[in-house]
Amino acid sequence: MKKNHYALIILGSGPAGLSAGLYAARARIDHLLIEKGAAGGQVLLTDWVDNYPGFPDGLSGFELIEKMEAQARRFGLNTLTANVVSTDLSQTTKSLTLEDGSQLTCQALIICTGARPQRLEVPGEIELTGKGVSYCATCDAPFYRDMHVAVVGGGNTAVQEAGHLTKFASRVTLIHRRDTLRATKIVQEKAFANKKIDFIWNSQVTGIEGEKGVERIQLRDNDGHETTLAVDGIFILIGVIPNSEMLPLALLKAEYGGFIPTDNETRTAIPGVMAAGDIRSKEMRQIVNAAGEGATAVLAAEQYLNHLTL
Amino acid sequence: MKKNHYALIILGSGPAGLSAGLYAARARIDHLLIEKGAAGGQVLLTDWVDNYPGFPDGLSGFELIEKMEAQARRFGLNTLTANVVSTDLSQTTKSLTLEDGSQLTCQALIICTGARPQRLEVPGEIELTGKGVSYCATCDAPFYRDMHVAVVGGGNTAVQEAGHLTKFASRVTLIHRRDTLRATKIVQEKAFANKKIDFIWNSQVTGIEGEKGVERIQLRDNDGHETTLAVDGIFILIGVIPNSEMLPLALLKAEYGGFIPTDNETRTAIPGVMAAGDIRSKEMRQIVNAAGEGATAVLAAEQYLNHLTL
Repeated sequence: MKKNHYALIILGSGPAGLSAGLYAARARIDHLLIEKGAAGGQVLLTDWVDNYPGFPDGLSGFELIEKMEAQARRFGLNTLTANVVSTDLSQTTKSLTLEDGSQLTCQALIICTGARPQRLEVPGEIELTGKGVSYCATCDAPFYRDMHVAVVGGGNTAVQEAGHLTKFASRVTLIHRRDTLRATKIVQEKAFANKKIDFIWNSQVTGIEGEKGVERIQLRDNDGHETTLAVDGIFILIGVIPNSEMLPLALLKAEYGGFIPTDNETRTAIPGVMAAGDIRSKEMRQIVNAAGEGATAVLAAEQYLNHLTL
Repeated sequence: MKKNHYALIILGSGPAGLSAGLYAARARIDHLLIEKGAAGGQVLLTDWVDNYPGFPDGLSGFELIEKMEAQARRFGLNTLTANVVSTDLSQTTKSLTLEDGSQLTCQALIICTGARPQRLEVPGEIELTGKGVSYCATCDAPFYRDMHVAVVGGGNTAVQEAGHLTKFASRVTLIHRRDTLRATKIVQEKAFANKKIDFIWNSQVTGIEGEKGVERIQLRDNDGHETTLAVDGIFILIGVIPNSEMLPLALLKAEYGGFIPTDNETRTAIPGVMAAGDIRSKEMRQIVNAAGEGATAVLAAEQYLNHLTL
């Protein structure tokens, strides 16, 4: 008979999910990790990972995920490839409904469904992702030493990261579709005072072009005038979307359009439900802290299960 | 002239400090990482690290630290070997006094001084650390499949970890110097119900012996009777001591004898002072979450510095 109940289900197979899987397998918790497709998450969008501690020369996002998965499998990670379409977390026994209509239940749940960058949805964007199109300045800024990059966006992240990029790039052009920034005043003032940053207002990117990497972008201003700007890279910083469509957002007290608040030990508002990685309400979204939170979430799950099963 | 002021000082060079150093160097923050001796911290007490995600076959604690340090140096990590004996964190400009009497100042400080396990202080303990003497069941339990191990302690950690160890070990003997456990009732009941756990009351370990690894321990009960117990390993779980002697504990609202509480973004009670790794007040003390917190602390430091320097 097919098993359909587990002490712990881990939802998602990015760094947070795989780290949780490693810790759950090592702790011999009766567990299942549900991955939507291949393991990975947003890491796979990154061409090269230079900032996950432990790899002096860096490694590809794909390679890192492969290593994390192999390690968890060595200790007995149990996985299922399936798409969870809805969840009922209102009872002690939590229930997950899969796309084929079948149900899985668990006592404890670790949500690691991650987030995805808001795309511009213009020609060339997907093809050149990781080849000059980036969604993370913290990750990729050092690759653009003495180059010219564009930043798209007008919020805190875009404007702050434009400043960060000037530590490497010789010139940063910030492109915004309005004539004022949304970022807080103090962040704006700093950007305006930075001589390496110039601004293109009331304009949108309509295309990203280049042979092996980004070479130029097409712009259209609000009056319909079209221009071309030669750049070596483009950072699209117009928002992050949580992958939380299958979750009971009200019960989880989700905020900012679906991100899940937790305490320091990754516990959500629902007893027995933890959240780790980019789906958490937090400021820092890096591989290493996602992995750290995955480990922490297993301890919280184990403590919850210990008290439950007595 | 020797530089003695930095935007950011990172105190400590375990996984939290080295991860913070990597992120600070990559963000080109004017920084200094102060290490007491060689880089490392408690990781060096562990013979083999199997649970840091990204290394399918594991690696030695020494090797992991070496890799983390080489990576941070590649991006320009700036270090100083020195012993900080006291700190004044009451002003915006923070001041650190070194053993030789000299002072360093900074605007932002990340505390990664870590913690150390409380030792039994008996013959053989130091010599056999990493060779059968362990201070971390989460780390080392899987090495003791079908073996007999001793656990020393009577608190929540010791009693819970004794249960955890029975998932691997065939027999766990819990040794406690009193006749009742300090652990909460529910944790105790679970241990008493576990047939793989036996108890030796009113006894202390007086020595740990073995050739290449732990083979037996010497015990003395409260009446002075001495016995020998053959075991394959011993987990000493009698407490963790924060390395916080140089810190203003009241200002930091330290708890549990010197651990530092922080918010989710590693900010302490003092503006501009962050804490990451084992020195934090937290439940999970693993390499990967220390490293994650180090990265998070740099973002918090950067945000603090950005608002300060405008």
